[in-house]
Amino acid sequence: MKLLKDKIQQEGKVLSDVVLKVDSFLNHQIDPMLMQAVGEEFANRYSDEIITKVLTIESSGIAPATFLGLVLGAPVVFARKRKSLTLTDNLYSSKVYSFTKNEVNEISVSKNFLSADDRVIIIDDFLANGEALKGLIEIVQQAGAHVVGAGIVIEKGFQQGGQQLREQGLRIESLANIKSLANGKVEFFD
Amino acid sequence: MKLLKDKIQQEGKVLSDVVLKVDSFLNHQIDPMLMQAVGEEFANRYSDEIITKVLTIESSGIAPATFLGLVLGAPVVFARKRKSLTLTDNLYSSKVYSFTKNEVNEISVSKNFLSADDRVIIIDDFLANGEALKGLIEIVQQAGAHVVGAGIVIEKGFQQGGQQLREQGLRIESLANIKSLANGKVEFFD
Repeated sequence: MKLLKDKIQQEGKVLSDVVLKVDSFLNHQIDPMLMQAVGEEFANRYSDEIITKVLTIESSGIAPATFLGLVLGAPVVFARKRKSLTLTDNLYSSKVYSFTKNEVNEISVSKNFLSADDRVIIIDDFLANGEALKGLIEIVQQAGAHVVGAGIVIEKGFQQGGQQLREQGLRIESLANIKSLANGKVEFFD
Repeated sequence: MKLLKDKIQQEGKVLSDVVLKVDSFLNHQIDPMLMQAVGEEFANRYSDEIITKVLTIESSGIAPATFLGLVLGAPVVFARKRKSLTLTDNLYSSKVYSFTKNEVNEISVSKNFLSADDRVIIIDDFLANGEALKGLIEIVQQAGAHVVGAGIVIEKGFQQGGQQLREQGLRIESLANIKSLANGKVEFFD
């Protein structure tokens, strides 16, 4: 997706060979026009599929997932990383290790909002080692629902999550797939 | 806003005289069409103001704030409740007590995304005691920016936050203002 790749080149900050900071339009400040375009691009790529629910994880997945849900006319569910007093039981849950934050989060989704007849697309901001995506897939499986595929805003293709999950048969559509962050430069796969 | 009030009556769950659960369209599952309408309603109510930035707090504020940002053509910034390794310094921050979760969160916004010439609207899902809103106002003030006003999806008007802040001169536009949750029923102010 050219618009997204251009934005990454213009505003992304390469902090190391593995860390790309895109706080100006995705992870802290949000560019609503770009997120709308991202949501529409996901819808285009999955236009051959019937999708009944969009699943993402708080917080950076919410904006692109919501724009996708708007196009599809489908509800969006965001997995929670922490439990609140008003969301305490009746949960699907899985454990997700975050390399960025160096901690394990238990993520959860209310059983009220995923059911066995759902056809689910999973949306996330980044795919690197695939930990979050695996956790979300596990939650969909706990519900007995079908994973149609995943939509990723930025994949770090030089890490192993995407390859592993594709080999297991998961369809993954990444709108920008990074080949390398070496020498402070962002290089994409074609 | 009739569409929102109808949705609250249909799907909101009154858990006690002070707790309303709206997980089916705002706090866990998101109704994208409703959130778009909410964003547009905020834009209409503040159409007399120049706004350069939309500020909210993760996670439930993100969807309505992003739709407002889309209408305004303005970036959206969501305050973070926890620090990540890629967002470590150069922060405005304030402490916010959550009655729902019974804990204090330090919320923060990067200094890169709020500046003294910004005219800021603050968006949040709920207003009850006003703790989150006060914390967000403090952050805007740290930046030396101007708070145009606040846009609240659901105000619990029987609690004191909204009244206190209006008495201090803050403009608050609430799209649904709840008078009472007594006897398991949601009653709105006119």
